[in-house]
Amino acid sequence: MGNRDRTRPTPGALSPDESPQVADAGVLKDALEMIDPRVASGLRDIPPSAMIPRERALATFRKTFADFGFVPIETPHIERMEVLTGKGAGSDEVLRQIYSVTNKGGEPGELALRFDLTVPLARFVAKNISELGKPFKRYAIGSVFRGERPAKGRFREFVQCDFDTVGTESPLADAEIAQVIHAALSAIGVPAFTITLNDRKILDGMLQKLGLADRTARILRSLDKLGKIGRDGVLKELRGGSEEGEVAGVGLTDDQARGVLDFVEAGRGGVEILGRVEESLGSLPRAAEGIANLRTIFDLLGAAGVPSERLRIDLGLARGLDYYTGVVYETTVDGWEKFGSVASGGRYDNLTRLFTDQPLPGVGASIGLDRLLALLEEAGWAKGASTTVPVLIPYFPGADPRHPVALAARLRASGIGAEVYPDAIQAGKQLQYGSTRGHRLAVIVGPAEQESRSFNLRDLATRQERKAIPWAELETVIAEALGMGSGAGR
Amino acid sequence: MGNRDRTRPTPGALSPDESPQVADAGVLKDALEMIDPRVASGLRDIPPSAMIPRERALATFRKTFADFGFVPIETPHIERMEVLTGKGAGSDEVLRQIYSVTNKGGEPGELALRFDLTVPLARFVAKNISELGKPFKRYAIGSVFRGERPAKGRFREFVQCDFDTVGTESPLADAEIAQVIHAALSAIGVPAFTITLNDRKILDGMLQKLGLADRTARILRSLDKLGKIGRDGVLKELRGGSEEGEVAGVGLTDDQARGVLDFVEAGRGGVEILGRVEESLGSLPRAAEGIANLRTIFDLLGAAGVPSERLRIDLGLARGLDYYTGVVYETTVDGWEKFGSVASGGRYDNLTRLFTDQPLPGVGASIGLDRLLALLEEAGWAKGASTTVPVLIPYFPGADPRHPVALAARLRASGIGAEVYPDAIQAGKQLQYGSTRGHRLAVIVGPAEQESRSFNLRDLATRQERKAIPWAELETVIAEALGMGSGAGR
Repeated sequence: MGNRDRTRPTPGALSPDESPQVADAGVLKDALEMIDPRVASGLRDIPPSAMIPRERALATFRKTFADFGFVPIETPHIERMEVLTGKGAGSDEVLRQIYSVTNKGGEPGELALRFDLTVPLARFVAKNISELGKPFKRYAIGSVFRGERPAKGRFREFVQCDFDTVGTESPLADAEIAQVIHAALSAIGVPAFTITLNDRKILDGMLQKLGLADRTARILRSLDKLGKIGRDGVLKELRGGSEEGEVAGVGLTDDQARGVLDFVEAGRGGVEILGRVEESLGSLPRAAEGIANLRTIFDLLGAAGVPSERLRIDLGLARGLDYYTGVVYETTVDGWEKFGSVASGGRYDNLTRLFTDQPLPGVGASIGLDRLLALLEEAGWAKGASTTVPVLIPYFPGADPRHPVALAARLRASGIGAEVYPDAIQAGKQLQYGSTRGHRLAVIVGPAEQESRSFNLRDLATRQERKAIPWAELETVIAEALGMGSGAGR
Repeated sequence: MGNRDRTRPTPGALSPDESPQVADAGVLKDALEMIDPRVASGLRDIPPSAMIPRERALATFRKTFADFGFVPIETPHIERMEVLTGKGAGSDEVLRQIYSVTNKGGEPGELALRFDLTVPLARFVAKNISELGKPFKRYAIGSVFRGERPAKGRFREFVQCDFDTVGTESPLADAEIAQVIHAALSAIGVPAFTITLNDRKILDGMLQKLGLADRTARILRSLDKLGKIGRDGVLKELRGGSEEGEVAGVGLTDDQARGVLDFVEAGRGGVEILGRVEESLGSLPRAAEGIANLRTIFDLLGAAGVPSERLRIDLGLARGLDYYTGVVYETTVDGWEKFGSVASGGRYDNLTRLFTDQPLPGVGASIGLDRLLALLEEAGWAKGASTTVPVLIPYFPGADPRHPVALAARLRASGIGAEVYPDAIQAGKQLQYGSTRGHRLAVIVGPAEQESRSFNLRDLATRQERKAIPWAELETVIAEALGMGSGAGR
């Protein structure tokens, strides 16, 4: 294949220089029936009107992560199956949703599409930690794939924005993750949101005190459903099991079940609730550690200027089973809690346990881009637009097209995006194109203006037009009309 | 599955709330042997040192595309197989490189990973053109997948940056594609490059004149190899075939073969060579169209301020077989031609022919991000760095960590990225971390400075240190030290 250019292949014939037999493919294709241009089930296209706010959010997140010293990495969309499924345990569940990938010459079952960015991070870090050094702070933004049943707003490919600090147990790293969530959501203009924190060690301590440490995983799984099935539902599960017989039940006594629930339900509020918790659990070293850690995190977030009304403790917050071991986070947008958490994560003792004996603790979180954008859209906080340029320059019928091309180049050079309409169709239709897509101004150079080296400036919203402005004033007049000051930036 | 939070799943257990049997997965896993953390064959991780210039380039490209009025779209990485393979002809070749994708419940062979961004564009446009309107100018940046034999610098997943104008035949759109290539490469700091243009109609005319129109595809395929196998190699192919018997041969007479080659070899230079071409082919309507089109493109590019030394005509440039029908582009970096084209494309009569009867002409190009970055790296033009923040604030042993956290927050608020080291290890090691990664300055607050509400500012390159600067002067002093003027921007 040698130096074959990969920048722009011929579709339908990947290797033109190696496939003489398909020289007439185009002719053959025309004779075939048309192909339905639909996407595969559970997947979607993202049109410009949704992509423009999406790219704006991603650029903001990248800048936020970078401002805290997180650096980007990228791992392939395709991983070796055993990296994703862990060679055994848990793989039934994973295999049910995983997309396996095969190419000619490959064995089926060898490769798969990643279903999150955490497993690839673990693999990457296990492989490279000696060169990376500690702490390693990385962010990663990319598509992940899960073959779930499609549903409204739930797609089989979606984007995660992860940021993690690996190789330190410091509470500064814990606090920083919440600080980044705060900075990122503030920067994209979410007006009010709540970051809920807990430390898994406190839950562990409480269960230890009640003599239930051996049933931690199943109890936490039930507690995570509190929002969904309510106090009574969870009580049923914690005791003998639900009456519908769907859930096995954890087998707690009535007192134990109520004890767990009372503790959790009283454990919601600001940092002040930790005093009460300390009284009941402070003598257990593990719980005391968790309490002290949450206190330090709140202290540091205060020093960082994160307003205390953005922060909340919920001692029932567990987030998953055997993975998180310290602080955990969830973030809901005030008034839009029904969307669930838009940024979540926590601390883990050993990210890389599948790949290396060297334990690597870390802490991180993930912003759910698709969910967040759906929320912004529904809340009316997304600024919709179908264009990213403020200025349209029509190709006026009968005029020399070099003038719009040259004027647009001047605008771009001064930092103002400008689009030239490519066809000399009726001017009204060109202006219509601009108003439909959201261009704000049109710079019009007809044959008469061309003669006098001037342009008319039309506001596409108000339809008002200023006539005969000299070309020399282009940048100044446009910058002023866009409210930009002296021609800089957009 | 209901409202399960997808923002941060437990790895190794996709649906914790549905898989009680894996509650002890972690324990089981620890007992298993370790998994090799390598990537699949032909794939790669991109570490921070490569990602930082990569993201810088992508941000520049996005801004460039947007400044011309191209809007972003995104299509899934997974497409229906028949969309990619076109239901029949050509699919042997495609299937050889394609990654097929299957999930539980899906039929094997139904889905596949996209191998370029052009077929998905065609599908998207065919489906949505009535809402999109014409012209539709889109860019798309994303990974594509080809199961080729791995080789140095060639990966099975790589990124394409495509931009296309669909729904117009205007030469303004043709010229604009070259203008965007010029703007994008200039913006990322490529010092000198050459955009080579041709119009396929001129080649068609020449072959028509020689009576060889029926063998166009095979002749063009040979001509595309001129750079690789030289004049003699191409001559052999065009005549009876190569003596090694590898190539079937096109079967031209010696005169015809020489005629084709002479035409092509004389057809390289600036726009002035079109005069000569017009003399020999101007009477053929199709060739005349191509000549006029190239002239207009050069005119418009001149008006747009693209320097003529960046532009070149090569009448032998064909780029693929039956796809391009008008102007074609290739771009090489001066002195680095061995890397091949870093930005290529052309005009096509009918993008959507597989999906709809409505013909949709268009023109576009693709920047080969991976190739371009490899070139920048090898040429020493990439500014390497392992951090994106200029300032490191150590957590000085014995000092209160709230001070570094608060100072870093102030710097970020004034637009200066700052990283706080999370562990109170020996200060020298923390500074070492900074100099290794490329932080420029360290803001040091030890117990003494904490007392006097001051900091020491250390230049991590020169190791010079300014002592006892009051906290109040933080933003001003740092901005000045970074050469940023009054605290704005980075």
